[in-house]
Amino acid sequence: MDTGEFRRLWNELAPIGRADTGGYLRFSWSEADLDCRLWFRAQAEQRGLRFEADRNGNLFAWWDPVKEAVQDPDRPHRGGAVLTGSHFDSVPHGGAYDGPLGIVSAFLAVDRLQSDGAQPHRAIGIAAFTEEEGGRFGVPCLGSRLMTGVVDPDKARALTDSGGTTLAEAMRAAGADPDLLGRDPQRLERIGAFVELHIEQGRALDGSESPVAVASAIWPHGRWRVTFTGEADHAGTTRLPDRHDPMLTFAFAVLAARKEARLAGGVATVGRVEAEPNATNAIAGRVTAWLDARAPDEAVLGEILSGFESKVKERAGRDGTMVEIFPESETPIVEFDGSLRDRIAALLGGAPVLPTGAGHDAGVLSAHVPTAMLFVRNPTGVSHAPGESASDEDCAAGVVALAAVLRELAC
Amino acid sequence: MDTGEFRRLWNELAPIGRADTGGYLRFSWSEADLDCRLWFRAQAEQRGLRFEADRNGNLFAWWDPVKEAVQDPDRPHRGGAVLTGSHFDSVPHGGAYDGPLGIVSAFLAVDRLQSDGAQPHRAIGIAAFTEEEGGRFGVPCLGSRLMTGVVDPDKARALTDSGGTTLAEAMRAAGADPDLLGRDPQRLERIGAFVELHIEQGRALDGSESPVAVASAIWPHGRWRVTFTGEADHAGTTRLPDRHDPMLTFAFAVLAARKEARLAGGVATVGRVEAEPNATNAIAGRVTAWLDARAPDEAVLGEILSGFESKVKERAGRDGTMVEIFPESETPIVEFDGSLRDRIAALLGGAPVLPTGAGHDAGVLSAHVPTAMLFVRNPTGVSHAPGESASDEDCAAGVVALAAVLRELAC
Repeated sequence: MDTGEFRRLWNELAPIGRADTGGYLRFSWSEADLDCRLWFRAQAEQRGLRFEADRNGNLFAWWDPVKEAVQDPDRPHRGGAVLTGSHFDSVPHGGAYDGPLGIVSAFLAVDRLQSDGAQPHRAIGIAAFTEEEGGRFGVPCLGSRLMTGVVDPDKARALTDSGGTTLAEAMRAAGADPDLLGRDPQRLERIGAFVELHIEQGRALDGSESPVAVASAIWPHGRWRVTFTGEADHAGTTRLPDRHDPMLTFAFAVLAARKEARLAGGVATVGRVEAEPNATNAIAGRVTAWLDARAPDEAVLGEILSGFESKVKERAGRDGTMVEIFPESETPIVEFDGSLRDRIAALLGGAPVLPTGAGHDAGVLSAHVPTAMLFVRNPTGVSHAPGESASDEDCAAGVVALAAVLRELAC
Repeated sequence: MDTGEFRRLWNELAPIGRADTGGYLRFSWSEADLDCRLWFRAQAEQRGLRFEADRNGNLFAWWDPVKEAVQDPDRPHRGGAVLTGSHFDSVPHGGAYDGPLGIVSAFLAVDRLQSDGAQPHRAIGIAAFTEEEGGRFGVPCLGSRLMTGVVDPDKARALTDSGGTTLAEAMRAAGADPDLLGRDPQRLERIGAFVELHIEQGRALDGSESPVAVASAIWPHGRWRVTFTGEADHAGTTRLPDRHDPMLTFAFAVLAARKEARLAGGVATVGRVEAEPNATNAIAGRVTAWLDARAPDEAVLGEILSGFESKVKERAGRDGTMVEIFPESETPIVEFDGSLRDRIAALLGGAPVLPTGAGHDAGVLSAHVPTAMLFVRNPTGVSHAPGESASDEDCAAGVVALAAVLRELAC
């Protein structure tokens, strides 16, 4: 495939929501998001695909099957549709590829099939799911979770962004109707398989011969709020042995989390911290931190947490502080459909099969339909930041692979 | 002295500004502060002391000399006045004693001298300095610093509290005139000596035979802003060896500061930290922290900082992060007047002589007039928190000591 084809379509979308930092501000239902939605509709119409916006703000472009006439487009036909696509929204100042690459590649894959004269006997759909990152309203995969009934629509309507605007208000301002939010079993039943193409979020393919990999699983993932309680005191006059400084225990915990993850073979991160009273001249009375840990399986994840807990509590004893650990979310492992994964890996000439530590709409849908993911090589491994990148050659290889998968499953 | 005398006067002031936590919210120019000021004026008037509010919001109660007639009360007389007192304002949720103990003790010391029929040949003044803690407008010792010309009045007027109210607005709302703020050399010249009584902010006197100590010096004190810069990335997908996580370097730095201070014989504290983007599922791109360090002399302080800097930079090299250290303030040692200190220590029967790590209005005034401090025992050592305490017996002993000092210097 000509990389120019990829570059031309990519360049149409790339300026929308790009900030001066080079990162993206594509919050759901923002001006930038609405521009992306208009672009999606135009792309669908240019290709003769049937455009559809569902009750949850997710967009679809349908290539209805030509081999088998469909009387009622809402009635599931034999085998169900093959859905691909991803999302437009970004984390604040995220990279260009996370999400949009899956949508652009989907349109280009359909172009390949159409120009080859392919005649799908199952519908092929391209999806753009809403608020996958949770970057505006805090709940990742909100569009797919609403669709599958995992998120309560009343709770969703009341979610607020950092400025206090609710999702309901943001949807109304964008001309959408938040009263329609909720489970959409009829639309879900039409999907026979979902294949999401996504930029790799790591460097496993760097130096490999293959620019494209197939996902095996999404690692189990836990988030814990950890409070370190000591005694606020004067930073100048309190003798070191008299202190109960929770910042020391917190600092130890940051290093302990990393060490336990390294030893067990997972990852652990403390990226968020709040100190009270957070004053330069006061020993903190309390530090609250959030631990994010992920591992290849739930046993390893449990090992990281229990190692962390015992080391940190032992240290708290020495610091005269108190540690409490509160689970905020624990997501079990997502194993993608094994036969679909093997069929795709074989089709792609033995593409590498990789797990991922990131959540995706594919993970949400996998509880309902056979689901697979393709990853396109990211040589820097950077994700959720402007340095995220993929070469045009690798993106074109991703399109070729996705077209082959759609042909295999739908034609 | 009867502890009941202390307790009666203390109980008058104690309810003002006390929060449900048991800590105090006595921000300067707040309702609570204005109530304290009314109380101060009433105490002055009850004792026949001349009440005066200066241009910077500091209050004075003057016992003009009786042995030597003064034609012009603003004209400095031989030897200058002996000033005592402290401040009313608190850090947020601070203790009851820090500040108010010096004012209550001053009125009770004057009571003792008056009931003994003492006839001062130098004026005795009681001061209540404004915003000593910097708890509302962020600049500690603001009242004494304005008086001595260390703080620019234009900058002071523009200082804002956490709600965005400027000092000028707060003063106007309280009926004071912010246009008058500024250097007050005439009033400063009237002061021949300043003796501030203060609760001890540590536990050096716990277990000692003496409930009262004399200050030798205020430790030199530095504050540095330290930035740890890495690379924001995905907390789930970025392999540990690929990370440039500034939270790790920050955590190491917290522990290194403590260790360097312990080895050198000073104190070092990290009580304030801010992470960016401060998200649970993102490796931080940057962490900013503030280091507060104090030591018996400037050489030791320098040793703590250089040890901290070299250890932390070495660690940053291993973490693939960058550390920068920006001095925010460096306050040299304050050595209180040696002859005044020795005279007072001898008068009090060989009271212990202690340095302190805390700043005080006495430190500001010591650059202009001979200055001393008395510390009253604080058995818990807690400071700037509700647990701060002193027994009524020790407070009464403080009054007796202060009265003896005023008699020695003024009568």
